[in-house]
Amino acid sequence: MRIARFFYRKAIKWGIVENRDIRLLPADPYKKIQAGFKKIRLNQAKLLPPAIPTKIILVGLNYKSHAKELGMKIPKQPVIFLKPPSSVLAPRGKIIYPPGVKRLDYEAELAIVIKKQTRNISPAAVKKCILGYTCLNDVTARDLQKIDVQWIRAKSFDTFCPLGPWIETEINPSNLRIKTYLNGEIKQNSSTAGFIFKIDYLVSFISKIMTLYPGDIISTGTPPGVGPMKINDIVEIEIESIGRLKNRVG
Amino acid sequence: MRIARFFYRKAIKWGIVENRDIRLLPADPYKKIQAGFKKIRLNQAKLLPPAIPTKIILVGLNYKSHAKELGMKIPKQPVIFLKPPSSVLAPRGKIIYPPGVKRLDYEAELAIVIKKQTRNISPAAVKKCILGYTCLNDVTARDLQKIDVQWIRAKSFDTFCPLGPWIETEINPSNLRIKTYLNGEIKQNSSTAGFIFKIDYLVSFISKIMTLYPGDIISTGTPPGVGPMKINDIVEIEIESIGRLKNRVG
Repeated sequence: MRIARFFYRKAIKWGIVENRDIRLLPADPYKKIQAGFKKIRLNQAKLLPPAIPTKIILVGLNYKSHAKELGMKIPKQPVIFLKPPSSVLAPRGKIIYPPGVKRLDYEAELAIVIKKQTRNISPAAVKKCILGYTCLNDVTARDLQKIDVQWIRAKSFDTFCPLGPWIETEINPSNLRIKTYLNGEIKQNSSTAGFIFKIDYLVSFISKIMTLYPGDIISTGTPPGVGPMKINDIVEIEIESIGRLKNRVG
Repeated sequence: MRIARFFYRKAIKWGIVENRDIRLLPADPYKKIQAGFKKIRLNQAKLLPPAIPTKIILVGLNYKSHAKELGMKIPKQPVIFLKPPSSVLAPRGKIIYPPGVKRLDYEAELAIVIKKQTRNISPAAVKKCILGYTCLNDVTARDLQKIDVQWIRAKSFDTFCPLGPWIETEINPSNLRIKTYLNGEIKQNSSTAGFIFKIDYLVSFISKIMTLYPGDIISTGTPPGVGPMKINDIVEIEIESIGRLKNRVG
């Protein structure tokens, strides 16, 4: 099932994407999901980010080959960081190239959307806390990341967290093809089978640090092939069985 | 004026602290503040964190002497990081010592509470975006900070962001005494006059990265004297003209 959030007739709605239609949901998708009969055309809806996170937790260096390309050591435990909710960008929204930044990179990531309040759970219990999966672009000002050593400023600008196009609830995330296209050319092409830390372990690890809430995002790291974007570039993050998150740099 | 948020008769309220009373506010304090006539006794209210931030932005190494005690270089630009909203703790709430952590430090900080949506403002315009100031304890698992290099995990545990006791709206923050007491003994004792980056500059700098919202917190770094806490310790952050934020480690 694909859960979308969108503007339709000036109101924010949730719905289930069915081919070229969206069947409206009467409420947000964190409790029981029961779609009504009302359908609209997908192309009449303006897609919004498919979650309103209270926090966005990302995992650094979760594919061995990406750690290598950055010249960083493979961590023994997950290294986590945060992006602020104000950085979230809708599908087709414009990634704003900040003045003064010298290198702005894409980073394709599989993002987990949390279904319910979760604290201190075991890896075996993780599945029931997950609503589904979506695509996330961990946009990064690489030059600022190097200056600060701390990663936060480089990754926290408004529009630096494209998210979407929707939440897929029925996939097995353990071996999905993940790609970045820049102006149609493949730049990242890997599989989530390459994770150093698997999803059950990651969510459990993070839930022992902080309480997770419905809509919170945990992003699972980027594969090798990160690289720079220029103004007017079109960047697309595609994950098998989910879809494609498309944004322009402006 | 001192703005408090609190539980009273099982409801969450805002109010103005006047000596030993609180005068109730009909709404949150981000628009016009107009207190009604109804007063309750301060000691009948259970104080809550005086803001509900969408994000908490902190500045690392903003006092020269603290950078020195950690063996870190004085940065040319502010180094920022984030704590998740889930880490916020009320005055008198219990700081939970996480299992496995070997050293848990207090860090006294002056925190700015944002009044209104703010993006890309000049230092000269900062004052009108600030509602007021409160005390923040940037609780840090020092051992995890060293392991990760990235600071986020070490600072993001639930209860690691004591905030309060209230927001003081009418002070000049440029030269306030800031202290930490651990079991009554003074451990940090400095003045906000020692900031490397001043408040107008800091808020302007951060507003060029991300949009700020009412209730968002910007914390201004800790002075020298950081040190460890043990279970059952009482830690108090005191800032001149604001008050004292008291918590127990448990």
